[in-house]
Amino acid sequence: MKKILVLGAGLSASSLIRYLLKHAPIYNWQIRIVDQNSLTAKKKIGNNPHGIALTFNALVKEERMLEMSQADLVISMLPARFHIDIARDCLLLKKNLITPSYVSDEMAELNEKVMLAGLTFMNEMGVDPGIDHMSAMKIIDEVKSKGGEIKSFKSFCGGLIAPENDNNPWKYKFTWNPRNVVLAGQGGTAQYIDHNQYKYIPYTQLFSRLYKLKIDGYGTFDGYPNRDSLSYRAAYGLEDIPTLYRGTLRKTNFCITWNVFVQLGMTDDSYIMENSEDLTPRDFVNAFLSYETTTPVEDKFKRFLASIHLDHFDRFEWLGLFDSDRKIGLKDATPAQILEKLLVEKLVLNPNDKDMIVMVHQFEYELAGKLYEIESSMVNIGEDAVFTGMSNTVGLPIAICAKLLLTEKFTQKGVLIPTDKSIYEPILAELNELGISFTEKEREIV
Amino acid sequence: MKKILVLGAGLSASSLIRYLLKHAPIYNWQIRIVDQNSLTAKKKIGNNPHGIALTFNALVKEERMLEMSQADLVISMLPARFHIDIARDCLLLKKNLITPSYVSDEMAELNEKVMLAGLTFMNEMGVDPGIDHMSAMKIIDEVKSKGGEIKSFKSFCGGLIAPENDNNPWKYKFTWNPRNVVLAGQGGTAQYIDHNQYKYIPYTQLFSRLYKLKIDGYGTFDGYPNRDSLSYRAAYGLEDIPTLYRGTLRKTNFCITWNVFVQLGMTDDSYIMENSEDLTPRDFVNAFLSYETTTPVEDKFKRFLASIHLDHFDRFEWLGLFDSDRKIGLKDATPAQILEKLLVEKLVLNPNDKDMIVMVHQFEYELAGKLYEIESSMVNIGEDAVFTGMSNTVGLPIAICAKLLLTEKFTQKGVLIPTDKSIYEPILAELNELGISFTEKEREIV
Repeated sequence: MKKILVLGAGLSASSLIRYLLKHAPIYNWQIRIVDQNSLTAKKKIGNNPHGIALTFNALVKEERMLEMSQADLVISMLPARFHIDIARDCLLLKKNLITPSYVSDEMAELNEKVMLAGLTFMNEMGVDPGIDHMSAMKIIDEVKSKGGEIKSFKSFCGGLIAPENDNNPWKYKFTWNPRNVVLAGQGGTAQYIDHNQYKYIPYTQLFSRLYKLKIDGYGTFDGYPNRDSLSYRAAYGLEDIPTLYRGTLRKTNFCITWNVFVQLGMTDDSYIMENSEDLTPRDFVNAFLSYETTTPVEDKFKRFLASIHLDHFDRFEWLGLFDSDRKIGLKDATPAQILEKLLVEKLVLNPNDKDMIVMVHQFEYELAGKLYEIESSMVNIGEDAVFTGMSNTVGLPIAICAKLLLTEKFTQKGVLIPTDKSIYEPILAELNELGISFTEKEREIV
Repeated sequence: MKKILVLGAGLSASSLIRYLLKHAPIYNWQIRIVDQNSLTAKKKIGNNPHGIALTFNALVKEERMLEMSQADLVISMLPARFHIDIARDCLLLKKNLITPSYVSDEMAELNEKVMLAGLTFMNEMGVDPGIDHMSAMKIIDEVKSKGGEIKSFKSFCGGLIAPENDNNPWKYKFTWNPRNVVLAGQGGTAQYIDHNQYKYIPYTQLFSRLYKLKIDGYGTFDGYPNRDSLSYRAAYGLEDIPTLYRGTLRKTNFCITWNVFVQLGMTDDSYIMENSEDLTPRDFVNAFLSYETTTPVEDKFKRFLASIHLDHFDRFEWLGLFDSDRKIGLKDATPAQILEKLLVEKLVLNPNDKDMIVMVHQFEYELAGKLYEIESSMVNIGEDAVFTGMSNTVGLPIAICAKLLLTEKFTQKGVLIPTDKSIYEPILAELNELGISFTEKEREIV
């Protein structure tokens, strides 16, 4: 019997755990799930005899080491910054590891030792990063294998609300960590390359320099650029590609409206607002507008919207931003924290709402003097509030990868990301059977 | 004979050194001036027998300690971050110290030790900070002494070009460190209080939320808020003041034009541009605009200007921003460094140009049920390229302060800033004689 140790049983682990439990009797697995909250793991296991819920703090080295030493494979679903500690333990205990997160510099430095130890540390095995790598590399390898040269690659992903529940004026609900949404784009100037020209988009332009997309049956979307597109040249073997752009998707109009918060400074997380616990939503908004003796906050806000050519005042009013009859009630809070609280009250998922993961790749390649374009897109709608699209698209690649490692179908060693055909081919094939599938359209550009 | 040790003989030390040398025979002083560059100190001393030029690196502790141990007073004109090291040495050697820079947290922590040692470390003894404190406190103390209550205090300062040399379309030349001008406003969200409402202005709004000013005989100006106005409440004894705003002055229209650089991300100092050494000015500008097959850079730039309601394309063209016949030639440079180089080529002071320091305080106060306003303003035009307005307004307060300390006219101990009447009164009086004078206008507000 093989023991799979899952560290962390939060939101994104639901589909992973379901898959592992379902396949446990076939492959003779025991699924040992650690969560600090005793109910969280138990609830996900139910009365399945192949799962064991463990209640301890996986961040405490002493607590996790005994469990890890008995495991055949460790899956870390902890917050990304803790993966490196788990990885170092895995190296010590000679255990394979899977994480859904970006390879940190510290993680990358372990590569040689991991290879020498004959281990596999598979990272970036979720949806973005994860399915994006795999589905892109499939096309890149196909184009290359027939002698084509890739000229342009644009890639987009978004975690959104399913069309049937898309019923608020923002065309958005928080299907994932709201704080990350509020702070999105603040990690540094976005950089990409377009027709061999390096392009830089500062935070102040991020939500107005948009890339328009249409997906058949799902309407129109806006993409805004992710921080660093350029590092993907090396990862994807596209060192000399003239155009490379990676972006985040939102439904059309979200970005230009969100931009108002950015421009006014409401997404700033770098300082504490004075008397924050006593502010009403109206006070909060007014703190970012100039003092005028008799002009109502609404009028100052409308004037600001006009100055940036926007006329969606109703969206802000709908959020309750001008309410003066209640305090926000956050002590020592930054603007970003207050904005998050205001938004979470309104942009919340209802119990029956479903989320939607959208991924789009656009390629242009040259073959025998002709130019072609390929669009590959995936839309995945969640099953319910537990087995969300996010949970499915993050958890299922990890689960399949676990199966491949434990059955020795995949044997590459080192600190890896899933860009190699030997890993993406079986995973994409099984994801397709599980309903996470890409639609490809190809045509010649005349 | 008393020895005054001046560390650093750069631009802002000229007027300081002239004053000290002129008064040396009267008070029996020897002025010992340290600069790493052997010519810098010598040039400022000329053949004056009261000055001694010393050539060593004042940043090296071993080199400066011997000189400091022999001094009766130390004046640090080094870059601000080095004052704390000098201050610690002064404490060890029991020497008084004057600096023109803001009291850092580390400097403030020395206060008790400095008091116990019976020493005076006078900081913020330049123009801004310096003359601003002194001229403001004079009015604040006057109003308080007659029983008035200050309701509003707005204070502005700017280092500009004299009207007779104000002959470029930007109405601006670099009269001071260009890097500071390019990075201005990036130290954090500006905060002030207006009618008891806290107001926050992010960098993205800084150069469009302007305060309009007019100074008789000198035209119109725009003020943009400084980072932290609120800390002045305690420093000035105005804890409960409803309105407090501190800003930087530019000639009208500079800010809204500068805002274009801010909005496009050209003032960003946080990353290195790819191939920066090979960029032409046109390439540089184009890196912040989207790729379009056939649209010239000028047209994309004009479209951006239109989007923010600006029509001063000629100002950018005059800067040579669209030139493609020359490389900027900066290796591994940030956008801010490249922009600085482009601007310095054009916004440079000619040898006969004069600079201008402008300071304006606006007060509102209540007395016996009536409301009054006071406007106090100072305009100081430089003598030439050496004895600039900046050099005079920074150096003369330090020089006078040195005289007061050495003649024991001022005896307060500790880490100080010049907010006390015993220091500002004699200094303002002598500055007035030296041509640095304030014009006050007072009227009742009906």
